[in-house]
Amino acid sequence: MAAPQSTHSAPARAPNVDSTITELKKLYGDRVSTAHAVREQHGKDISYHEAHLPDAVVFAESTEEVQEIVKLCARLKTPIIPFGTGTSLEGHISAPNGGISLDVSRMNKVVQVNEADLDVVVQPGVTRKQLNEYIRATGLFFPIDPGADASIGGMASTRASGTNAVRYGTMRENVLSLQVVTADGRLMRLGGRARKSSAGYDLVKLFVGSEGTLGVITEVTLRLYGIPESMVAATCAFDSLEGAVNTVIQTIQSGIPVARIELMDTETVDTVNKYSKLSLPNKNLLLLEFHGTEAGTKEQAEMVQALAAENGGGDFAWTSQAEERSKMWQGRHDAAWAAKAAKPGWGMWATDVCVPISNLAECILETQKDIVANGLYAPIVGHVGDGNFHLTMMVNPDDPTYLKRAEGLNDRMIARAQHLGGTCTGEHGVGIGKIKYLYKEHGEAMSLMRSIKKALDPDNIMNPGKIIGPIN
Amino acid sequence: MAAPQSTHSAPARAPNVDSTITELKKLYGDRVSTAHAVREQHGKDISYHEAHLPDAVVFAESTEEVQEIVKLCARLKTPIIPFGTGTSLEGHISAPNGGISLDVSRMNKVVQVNEADLDVVVQPGVTRKQLNEYIRATGLFFPIDPGADASIGGMASTRASGTNAVRYGTMRENVLSLQVVTADGRLMRLGGRARKSSAGYDLVKLFVGSEGTLGVITEVTLRLYGIPESMVAATCAFDSLEGAVNTVIQTIQSGIPVARIELMDTETVDTVNKYSKLSLPNKNLLLLEFHGTEAGTKEQAEMVQALAAENGGGDFAWTSQAEERSKMWQGRHDAAWAAKAAKPGWGMWATDVCVPISNLAECILETQKDIVANGLYAPIVGHVGDGNFHLTMMVNPDDPTYLKRAEGLNDRMIARAQHLGGTCTGEHGVGIGKIKYLYKEHGEAMSLMRSIKKALDPDNIMNPGKIIGPIN
Repeated sequence: MAAPQSTHSAPARAPNVDSTITELKKLYGDRVSTAHAVREQHGKDISYHEAHLPDAVVFAESTEEVQEIVKLCARLKTPIIPFGTGTSLEGHISAPNGGISLDVSRMNKVVQVNEADLDVVVQPGVTRKQLNEYIRATGLFFPIDPGADASIGGMASTRASGTNAVRYGTMRENVLSLQVVTADGRLMRLGGRARKSSAGYDLVKLFVGSEGTLGVITEVTLRLYGIPESMVAATCAFDSLEGAVNTVIQTIQSGIPVARIELMDTETVDTVNKYSKLSLPNKNLLLLEFHGTEAGTKEQAEMVQALAAENGGGDFAWTSQAEERSKMWQGRHDAAWAAKAAKPGWGMWATDVCVPISNLAECILETQKDIVANGLYAPIVGHVGDGNFHLTMMVNPDDPTYLKRAEGLNDRMIARAQHLGGTCTGEHGVGIGKIKYLYKEHGEAMSLMRSIKKALDPDNIMNPGKIIGPIN
Repeated sequence: MAAPQSTHSAPARAPNVDSTITELKKLYGDRVSTAHAVREQHGKDISYHEAHLPDAVVFAESTEEVQEIVKLCARLKTPIIPFGTGTSLEGHISAPNGGISLDVSRMNKVVQVNEADLDVVVQPGVTRKQLNEYIRATGLFFPIDPGADASIGGMASTRASGTNAVRYGTMRENVLSLQVVTADGRLMRLGGRARKSSAGYDLVKLFVGSEGTLGVITEVTLRLYGIPESMVAATCAFDSLEGAVNTVIQTIQSGIPVARIELMDTETVDTVNKYSKLSLPNKNLLLLEFHGTEAGTKEQAEMVQALAAENGGGDFAWTSQAEERSKMWQGRHDAAWAAKAAKPGWGMWATDVCVPISNLAECILETQKDIVANGLYAPIVGHVGDGNFHLTMMVNPDDPTYLKRAEGLNDRMIARAQHLGGTCTGEHGVGIGKIKYLYKEHGEAMSLMRSIKKALDPDNIMNPGKIIGPIN
């Protein structure tokens, strides 16, 4: 089906938003803010998309409060935009219809660590780094690591992923259970702590990735993993991007259980070396990590080194030193900020696609040509073991044609990925930025998403305008 | 919410079923059958539940035909029950409201093998063994192995699992994409071939496990895996069930990547030895398999052997001989038939639950006591690495109290599992057999399942009466 056209004029202000704010203030006093600075911080994520500010922000401190707030908004048909850390990348937290930003960042307790079962129950405002700090003494860790120190609630909502997904999966595979408040203000638990279940529709997976459009997440149960006995990180440099990508493909096809296999193009290596004070070889670079026993990680590293050598890979360097490893991965995580630092004053627009791995080389190489042909600056990094790669498109504000050209690059990259059997976003999500691509990708199936949204949120108060776009 | 009460009298015959059959016969001639034997074969799975026969069976041979049949039934509001191999265990294919059994077993082509991407596209009637035969030469395999040689469409519909799930996941993790015909007869594709995606609601995961209540699956895209360089199978015997279960728990907690870790209690070992002509030690037995490199599997086996020894496990025997391995696993797969052979003339009722692994020992041991206390015959087998175990309850037809006692055992085992944070079914599904337990397990969340069902199938024609029960 065709994507709904959003009206270019701003939608009407939600009719009862003032009385909603009045009632919220009665309940929560100065935990309700209408200050412009606070609204601005809540209406603008780290994406390039235009900000739409909520009419007010309320800071919830408990599940009961979330439920009370949603019930109030449901009664007054006032939009609610759940907010964690505001680090989303496609305008997920913007408020095109106004309404209330429901900030859950103060709900940041780790509720229960079940060491024996390798799971943990957290409130939605817990961030991924906070969680890993908290559980460190248990010998367990939570592997999902998007670039930002995002909240677990937000990561569940966007079906986030990161560098470890090739081995440990994404939020899709790692959320066992959710507690949610639905659009009509009911509190319920979805799923459970059993590792598998055939007990009815998979509501957990429906809410994971639903970007706050079906309800508010108030608790998340996550899988954890034992910190491996041995972790070995490695880098390998390639003159050609193709050699690097083919090494990835062959590694995956050989079933080598790499924990991480990341790509930086030369542009990215250059900026990361400067920003993070590293001295990585200035070539197309694979960054790898192997988890297992000492013998196992050694064996894995040797197998990948052999594959890399066949594809022109050299400078294979590996280390099990924790400090060196973490410095290298911090560099990788800072790649977007490094690109930003390389172009002071420019805007940053991060976008991602994901394709079946056999089409990865073609998709990246064509995109790289496209960048050059259009005179753009857009370093490429990728979670290439999953077939997922990112552009950090930098946008020169002083060049009136630049943004248009960047938009064209994004359009073409997505069309290319979809044509190659891929998806318009591997891990960033839809927000407001990728709605039109979503309709192209899913076609008729969008009508099911719209039916589900209407069934579960008939008044369209939950993060309206996201994923499926405006509802008539 | 409370489970809906099913009316004890048979529901009225679907009003337009006769004209539906007339129209189907015009289209498909003798591929439409109203013969009692054919209807009986399609209305009764291998469960203990009462049979409800469909009014007719139609054998579809293409996606276009499925679409035509569903459109016809949708127009006449006639129930449709999708049918693969009829090997479900909770009455999934019975027709309590009558209607048309839509048999897709003739849609049994492997459509496309994407070796480089480790995926395959199949029609729904392809069975798991047929698939593995077909792809054997590629060096790839599909790991999900429920006891029966079920159809892939049926396995997707029940979110099936098996002995390899601890390493490779269930159908939940291994279905990448579906082509489906919705209740109103539209054909659409859900998901895609990319390994991960944040592109909208996860409709694939919604349909996986929906037991034909939301639409008919006409094509399935599955993940495949490389056949490991080395596969080692092992057995280890324990005097106490507790020692065996604790070994499993410690193995999982240690992060040893076992491919299979299965439990048979002494009762099961005894029957399997007789039925499959094996000579397994007559104790509580763990059956294991390790996948990896030669060095890796050896290392894994030694680690588990050490853990087992600490828990009183002896007779640790291992082999990498393909023939011995497959004989052992065939014995495991035949466990239910072995139980049946041990009690000639008795009925068989298979049931399963799944709990967080720390509660596995308690749940199994209490259940074992319950079996003894009630004088029942119900061998226990388990995919214990997932916290999932099965009872093969045999029912003596000559003892009028036996079935009642078996029902009580099932009730208590499920209540116990749910009380311990588990689920009423790990892999068999809901069908008509577990509806009441489902409502207890999910509570308020059942209303979301009902809302989704109503939104996607407003006339309740798709496998009515299953999962959520009767709709008023």
